[in-house]
Amino acid sequence: MLMVLNFRNERNWEQFHNSKDLAISLSLEASELLENFQWKSSEEAVKENKENIEDELADVLIYSLLLANDLKLDVDKIIKNKIQKNEKKYPVDKAYGVRTKYTNL
Amino acid sequence: MLMVLNFRNERNWEQFHNSKDLAISLSLEASELLENFQWKSSEEAVKENKENIEDELADVLIYSLLLANDLKLDVDKIIKNKIQKNEKKYPVDKAYGVRTKYTNL
Amino acid sequence: MLMVLNFRNERNWEQFHNSKDLAISLSLEASELLENFQWKSSEEAVKENKENIEDELADVLIYSLLLANDLKLDVDKIIKNKIQKNEKKYPVDKAYGVRTKYTNL
Amino acid sequence: MLMVLNFRNERNWEQFHNSKDLAISLSLEASELLENFQWKSSEEAVKENKENIEDELADVLIYSLLLANDLKLDVDKIIKNKIQKNEKKYPVDKAYGVRTKYTNL
Repeated sequence: MLMVLNFRNERNWEQFHNSKDLAISLSLEASELLENFQWKSSEEAVKENKENIEDELADVLIYSLLLANDLKLDVDKIIKNKIQKNEKKYPVDKAYGVRTKYTNL
Repeated sequence: MLMVLNFRNERNWEQFHNSKDLAISLSLEASELLENFQWKSSEEAVKENKENIEDELADVLIYSLLLANDLKLDVDKIIKNKIQKNEKKYPVDKAYGVRTKYTNL
Repeated sequence: MLMVLNFRNERNWEQFHNSKDLAISLSLEASELLENFQWKSSEEAVKENKENIEDELADVLIYSLLLANDLKLDVDKIIKNKIQKNEKKYPVDKAYGVRTKYTNL
Repeated sequence: MLMVLNFRNERNWEQFHNSKDLAISLSLEASELLENFQWKSSEEAVKENKENIEDELADVLIYSLLLANDLKLDVDKIIKNKIQKNEKKYPVDKAYGVRTKYTNL
């Protein structure tokens, strides 16, 4: 996290980083990651594009951390909260081995 | 990270989690996060949708961790590698206070 | 529409065009379109990136037409159907000048 | 096209429709379309979610037309231009039956 912020602050880029544009950027990086799988199976994609997949996943994480920082969110805490909500939406006894959306469980 | 994997494994969902569909899911969650900013300024979005923004950002992080796990990637390491690449693409003396893409620097 | 199909068929690409990958491609092109607006206002984006915006919007339309063709859908008909649904979700008397989502109207 | 504009104008929504938010909306609708294919093969998705796929594809087209209108673009013309560019990037003799990106052809 510190490394990510240092990179930004050394370049004085914080001025551009409003949360709306960070959310746009996060979505764009997730698409660039997905592009590695276009027209391919998982296996083909990983075999052919391993390095790029790593870089794009890193970009997704970097923007996630920047957005969390911008909104003063504790990353571990929001993950923990969300998993607790998911545990209610997808109780083990109903969701075991099923990929149905919670609204249809 | 452990918590994320436990949640999945308790539900026996690993069978659905191939890396292509994880990359799709990551992209979908990033869009749901962005939806909170649609037709709004950053300030309006954060004011009106704070809790949903936290949940969706958590989902982005959760899928990122699942995909990293699936590909046997060390999250800290890929972030560090990517920042080192970015430092070469955006040297401080050229990129300071400028939002130009590296291909045009 | 004919032009789009001709382009594809001349290259014998139909074999790759399953609807899942077409939906992925459509999403990727929509992101490339959006990239032109990253860190910018609408006015700045249109001024600086007009030609690329045109090209990416064209790509979105091309993949939309390919997907419609793949699913044997009549484009005019699905648009007409959707607008009729929207008219019920957003009746003029409630939705006039308001950007609230229909679930909250 | 006329129908799309009428729907908007009757609701006095043009005031919200700047091109940046239209591009965001287009990207979100493309993701909602893609969501129908998450964790599924093309065949399963079309079988289970046919109506929703039609609606979301219609939404993608509706926002594409609104954005084109906003930017005063002729939809047929930009598609024609883009296909002509693609014909140069992907000449039939090199691209026949190959899914390689043009930068690697």
